[in-house]
Amino acid sequence: MARTVIEISGHIIDSLILPKVLDLIVNLGADFEVLEVEVGKRRADRSRALIQLDAGTPELLGQVLAKVKEHGAVPVDAESETARVEPAPADGVFPEHFYATTNLLTRVRLNRDWLEVENPEMDCGIQITARGDAARTLPMHRVQKGDLIVVGHGGVKVAPMERRVPREGFEFMSSSVSTEQPKGLLIHEIADTMRRVREARGKILMVAGPGLVHTGAARHLVELIESGYVQVLFAGNGLAVHDIESALFGTSLGVYLDKKVRAREGHEHHLRAINRIRRAGGIRQAVAQGIIRSGIFYACVQKGVEFVLAGSIRDDGPLPDVVTDTLKAQDLMRENIRGVDFALMMATTLHAIATGNILPATVKTVCVDINPAVVTKLTDRGTFQAMGLVTDVEPFLRELCQYLKPGASTRRPGAAG
Amino acid sequence: MARTVIEISGHIIDSLILPKVLDLIVNLGADFEVLEVEVGKRRADRSRALIQLDAGTPELLGQVLAKVKEHGAVPVDAESETARVEPAPADGVFPEHFYATTNLLTRVRLNRDWLEVENPEMDCGIQITARGDAARTLPMHRVQKGDLIVVGHGGVKVAPMERRVPREGFEFMSSSVSTEQPKGLLIHEIADTMRRVREARGKILMVAGPGLVHTGAARHLVELIESGYVQVLFAGNGLAVHDIESALFGTSLGVYLDKKVRAREGHEHHLRAINRIRRAGGIRQAVAQGIIRSGIFYACVQKGVEFVLAGSIRDDGPLPDVVTDTLKAQDLMRENIRGVDFALMMATTLHAIATGNILPATVKTVCVDINPAVVTKLTDRGTFQAMGLVTDVEPFLRELCQYLKPGASTRRPGAAG
Amino acid sequence: MARTVIEISGHIIDSLILPKVLDLIVNLGADFEVLEVEVGKRRADRSRALIQLDAGTPELLGQVLAKVKEHGAVPVDAESETARVEPAPADGVFPEHFYATTNLLTRVRLNRDWLEVENPEMDCGIQITARGDAARTLPMHRVQKGDLIVVGHGGVKVAPMERRVPREGFEFMSSSVSTEQPKGLLIHEIADTMRRVREARGKILMVAGPGLVHTGAARHLVELIESGYVQVLFAGNGLAVHDIESALFGTSLGVYLDKKVRAREGHEHHLRAINRIRRAGGIRQAVAQGIIRSGIFYACVQKGVEFVLAGSIRDDGPLPDVVTDTLKAQDLMRENIRGVDFALMMATTLHAIATGNILPATVKTVCVDINPAVVTKLTDRGTFQAMGLVTDVEPFLRELCQYLKPGASTRRPGAAG
Amino acid sequence: MARTVIEISGHIIDSLILPKVLDLIVNLGADFEVLEVEVGKRRADRSRALIQLDAGTPELLGQVLAKVKEHGAVPVDAESETARVEPAPADGVFPEHFYATTNLLTRVRLNRDWLEVENPEMDCGIQITARGDAARTLPMHRVQKGDLIVVGHGGVKVAPMERRVPREGFEFMSSSVSTEQPKGLLIHEIADTMRRVREARGKILMVAGPGLVHTGAARHLVELIESGYVQVLFAGNGLAVHDIESALFGTSLGVYLDKKVRAREGHEHHLRAINRIRRAGGIRQAVAQGIIRSGIFYACVQKGVEFVLAGSIRDDGPLPDVVTDTLKAQDLMRENIRGVDFALMMATTLHAIATGNILPATVKTVCVDINPAVVTKLTDRGTFQAMGLVTDVEPFLRELCQYLKPGASTRRPGAAG
Repeated sequence: MARTVIEISGHIIDSLILPKVLDLIVNLGADFEVLEVEVGKRRADRSRALIQLDAGTPELLGQVLAKVKEHGAVPVDAESETARVEPAPADGVFPEHFYATTNLLTRVRLNRDWLEVENPEMDCGIQITARGDAARTLPMHRVQKGDLIVVGHGGVKVAPMERRVPREGFEFMSSSVSTEQPKGLLIHEIADTMRRVREARGKILMVAGPGLVHTGAARHLVELIESGYVQVLFAGNGLAVHDIESALFGTSLGVYLDKKVRAREGHEHHLRAINRIRRAGGIRQAVAQGIIRSGIFYACVQKGVEFVLAGSIRDDGPLPDVVTDTLKAQDLMRENIRGVDFALMMATTLHAIATGNILPATVKTVCVDINPAVVTKLTDRGTFQAMGLVTDVEPFLRELCQYLKPGASTRRPGAAG
Repeated sequence: MARTVIEISGHIIDSLILPKVLDLIVNLGADFEVLEVEVGKRRADRSRALIQLDAGTPELLGQVLAKVKEHGAVPVDAESETARVEPAPADGVFPEHFYATTNLLTRVRLNRDWLEVENPEMDCGIQITARGDAARTLPMHRVQKGDLIVVGHGGVKVAPMERRVPREGFEFMSSSVSTEQPKGLLIHEIADTMRRVREARGKILMVAGPGLVHTGAARHLVELIESGYVQVLFAGNGLAVHDIESALFGTSLGVYLDKKVRAREGHEHHLRAINRIRRAGGIRQAVAQGIIRSGIFYACVQKGVEFVLAGSIRDDGPLPDVVTDTLKAQDLMRENIRGVDFALMMATTLHAIATGNILPATVKTVCVDINPAVVTKLTDRGTFQAMGLVTDVEPFLRELCQYLKPGASTRRPGAAG
Repeated sequence: MARTVIEISGHIIDSLILPKVLDLIVNLGADFEVLEVEVGKRRADRSRALIQLDAGTPELLGQVLAKVKEHGAVPVDAESETARVEPAPADGVFPEHFYATTNLLTRVRLNRDWLEVENPEMDCGIQITARGDAARTLPMHRVQKGDLIVVGHGGVKVAPMERRVPREGFEFMSSSVSTEQPKGLLIHEIADTMRRVREARGKILMVAGPGLVHTGAARHLVELIESGYVQVLFAGNGLAVHDIESALFGTSLGVYLDKKVRAREGHEHHLRAINRIRRAGGIRQAVAQGIIRSGIFYACVQKGVEFVLAGSIRDDGPLPDVVTDTLKAQDLMRENIRGVDFALMMATTLHAIATGNILPATVKTVCVDINPAVVTKLTDRGTFQAMGLVTDVEPFLRELCQYLKPGASTRRPGAAG
Repeated sequence: MARTVIEISGHIIDSLILPKVLDLIVNLGADFEVLEVEVGKRRADRSRALIQLDAGTPELLGQVLAKVKEHGAVPVDAESETARVEPAPADGVFPEHFYATTNLLTRVRLNRDWLEVENPEMDCGIQITARGDAARTLPMHRVQKGDLIVVGHGGVKVAPMERRVPREGFEFMSSSVSTEQPKGLLIHEIADTMRRVREARGKILMVAGPGLVHTGAARHLVELIESGYVQVLFAGNGLAVHDIESALFGTSLGVYLDKKVRAREGHEHHLRAINRIRRAGGIRQAVAQGIIRSGIFYACVQKGVEFVLAGSIRDDGPLPDVVTDTLKAQDLMRENIRGVDFALMMATTLHAIATGNILPATVKTVCVDINPAVVTKLTDRGTFQAMGLVTDVEPFLRELCQYLKPGASTRRPGAAG
């Protein structure tokens, strides 16, 4: 029999944290007694609860504590606990009991101080510097023998996302996969968010699949790039190939985008486009040599937008710019998400999930796809902050561009209707 | 052993009719010998083939003949055959061996003349007038005891759809369920078709589901109605209720369409809207009394657009205008499709399939839905002329309206890009 | 400025009722102060909260009270309030301010007594008997001029569903639309539930679409009927037609279910099947006359299972047993859901939603479909108690039958693995 | 003005090749005259057509010839033409006018001999050995400066797939994405095919996604491996991780597969599983060290099944066995498909498409997924020989295993019913 007392505070009732913690305790096989609850009298006030935990064994108690910690519940006597570290036993291998991270803001206590863990990312370990003055997430493949890694749950604190009650903006998105919604207002919200981010000199990340080109939406993305609404672009070989095919031949997958006819031998255009860019040495070189004169990647090069093209086994070619090693591609993506404030994922499952895996939970994320399953997959895999919009990407981007045009009214669509 | 010789003519090679007929013969267990083929030397020319059929039994031969007839293959000695008729044995019951219709143009031979069957519709019988001077399709529930009904396949000829090789227009649509297409051009085609139909004083039928209102697309449909691009509207209680809820309360399913917030008690708005229209006596009365002052049905009443609201078991209320008997609703729909040249089905499965069931194969049909399964279902059920467009209905209608605006250029989108 | 004090009690914290009520108050534009909270010390204990409400106007206060009432929050002084009634102004029309029902257990206070409203059903009115000694839900189309109908929210109390924390059974189903789940255990749960219902002499309702026959699953449903696991069957013309086509011709939609080949002229089989049953006078007559000797409806007739065949505008024929008037069909469904303890909906959207509309929230409901959208639609439309299982209906029913076989172990699958 | 005469022969009418060729000619802007047609008198006979081509320019004529060649149409004077080759201008770069391959059987004419191109694969070049005595496909990334590569279309012949008229087996599959089918028979067909392949000592390739483990289907795959029905397995990190998580912890994504409860801290299980295998050095080492004692990959190691784990950017870890470079992974997959006779793809989009990209069109391929879009994507991308089965993978594999059990009857299911 083991017992301790935990405390949770914050907007624990209207953010549903208290009920979730009580659920967890019981589900894990322990018991609880609510010793004290102070509910904030008003919406703005914080609440606080003291809960006594009883578990059959100290092990179970430990497990329960580990779990409820994800929701910000800490033992009242835990503030004094210090994180334990162990050296990694080999390159690419964590110590057996490494602390596995969430994508939430996390702190570790070392030498009496609570350090914020740099670069929150799920499914990593926490590395402590040799001096013990800094902590950062470390993906498994980058750990080196001897690196100091946090083990166990002691001395680690997580700041739970307090789901704020939705007010005006993004309210609908909670029911994320519905296709029967007035979408104009959501798109307006996204435009507002992007404008605010840019006014504050923040970074916007776009993650895009090749469907953008096939559906004729590339010109809208070009417009956003040229207007300064894209700082980073993540994509695969496919998006770049079809964008460049379009720049070189006017076709996408062999189809003329401005007519309805298949190009003669058009199915080979994407291969010939790849071959020419390989010959030129890469996208930047092809732009410099005047081979590519339009399109998404032309705009990226002109405007200095960072892009990461991550390889996949279904790639043709690929283009020289594609990072064919998936671990190197991940690491490059990690570097480029630093400082991102808003992420917009469009018409891609693979790249959306891969990006979701490495984004901190604090980055506002919107995922747009005509297939509801993509949105569901993304949130199922832990990117719970992602809001989904089930719609066709071409009209979505067209409308988004309209709202972001310099002279565009910030009045809501239909507000006068 | 039974043998006969059949002839097929027309664009039998490039419309794939010849290979299909040969397939059928073998699949049914008979054998064939190609006696003669004259292939049109040029694309515009017609071809002609004489094929000898051998079947194990006269019954099998009859079955094969019945089947290949759907593709326009007729026995060379069949021109002299006359259709057989039998009286219906009871109200609502066909004679056992009634000829079951397709939705293709059909002719029956009576008294030496080939009569065109009126109102082609699939899965009906063919009724012959007492005088034998006219033939028309008859749905099963409308046959009356003693009506003369065609039995067997003799003396019945079907004009197969010669799938013309797609050129410019609608070419893409063949691969109907793809979501990765440049859709702007297809929408442009649809606009062109609608404009041509109206210039020729033809009729356009819209079939629409309630998603049109939820997604904020109703105002586009209103615009089309006001511009004269809708002559008939088929829908259910749901579309009308949410349109009227929107006219009365500004909400759809309790959601304010011009804000993102749920109305207070908004979930009841649709019920209160129904109740008020029931009290007024119906939609037309409510318009006359000034209760309904905007929306789709207001526009229909103002512009004299015929509408049929067909009942379903999931209806609330329903509105007094809803035809709750499904057979009466079908019959009313049958009356209203007379003379329709173009049918546009949007965001509805039930009404799209029900309409597809009664449309002749000669009516150009486009089905728009964000869910590819709807389009697949429609064509699987025999409405093979339907072309599908997998996209979001609100931006679809918005774009369609732009192309149909009086001053709108008829230049293709992107043609200059 | 208007103020009152409301009380909520029960498992208000772990069933998330308290936070939802606080959310609602703020969203509606009112303010609150939590006066008192007693949290149950243990899981089994009930909690209680007193909350002071402040609203800008008495109207707003009324709206807030109406809304929070759905979650069981009642003004502390409300116990003394009596429901107001008004006579219906015309046949089929409720008084303007009629109380619109939920599908939850509801009570109204008349003459000092709290009466339970019979037959909870959403989107209805509440009729009070002339004597004021009984209350029942009344669909809009059945109200008659002068019927006494509850208006306003005073004197009406709703018992909110306390979402019990999922334990063993059905736990997964919360994330209802996922396709990536071990489904064997869920099917085992469903079998257990069905067995328990039958042991208690309860009623099981099956709602089924025609896909059951096309996919070869009909024989499993026959097995369930024969084993006494079906008391009521709701379906449409399609299921019956294809079942009878299969009994008469061995085909479904013209495809031989035990071979892979299309029947000769098989596309007409369903029409000929309908015609023969029409001639016989109906399904029961056709069974009696020896025309139908196998299949789902043969089994229903033999075992005395009640079935309701509701008409729809896409019906061919239809069979004489089909209730073509949708209001009559709804009413017949209403009669037949009395006493149902468990509802299993398979491979149908229309009938699942229509049934969901009339089921009380207390009936355990499982919806099985290969298309996740069906499940989403059902719960979006208010049947929130429905748990979804996204899988193929034929293997689902096959496995369910295995678990329900008389000798079948009640051990969980894989428990030994 | 340019003119030539082409010949096509074979089952050109019932395999629809003739109409397609005529279509192509006209679509490309050329004109034709049918000089001669000999239609096979019987089904087994081959047909032959001579067609005169007229094009406005020699360039257009060349394009038309290039295109119709894919369907086996060759200029009557072409048999004497020889393939032209050019050296690759740089590593990884083809000559500008390289011949882009299809996945069909292809021959090139060198020194008067027609050589069969080894390893048919789409979207590659054709490399000729220095001696000119052999030809093989070469993916773009593997070409080395100076390699001799075929350019233009002269001297290249493709054997078109003659779509045989479907008879018994796989007939349904033509309408591949329908979810409303009796699937038992299709699964029986697949089992028959697998049995025949194994009796002839052929190779079976399985391509599988992680959903196999989540849905509890892994044990069926284990059974197939142990019974010798799997020679090669293509998958990603995910399948292996969840299989090994299951072997080590009994969970998949933290869910106990034989209960319905989430494991305590189960969400970390997959990370801990990866970490342990990384420590062990790899899957084979972990099996040897007794760490892995069950599951798919245990069975693969025991039975000597080749497996390729291809990396992707969404991988956690990954396992040491994962080939993180996507080009190396592709090349390893290419090696392992040599000699494969049958490919079964289950519950994976990425790996199915990547495998489809490199498979010759002659390999029978079946793609099983609960999502119809996966099957559509696969065939849209050129793997037109793939037949789709839209169903749930767990019951699919369960049923397949039953049919493949040593004592299993080869009688068709339902044949006695």
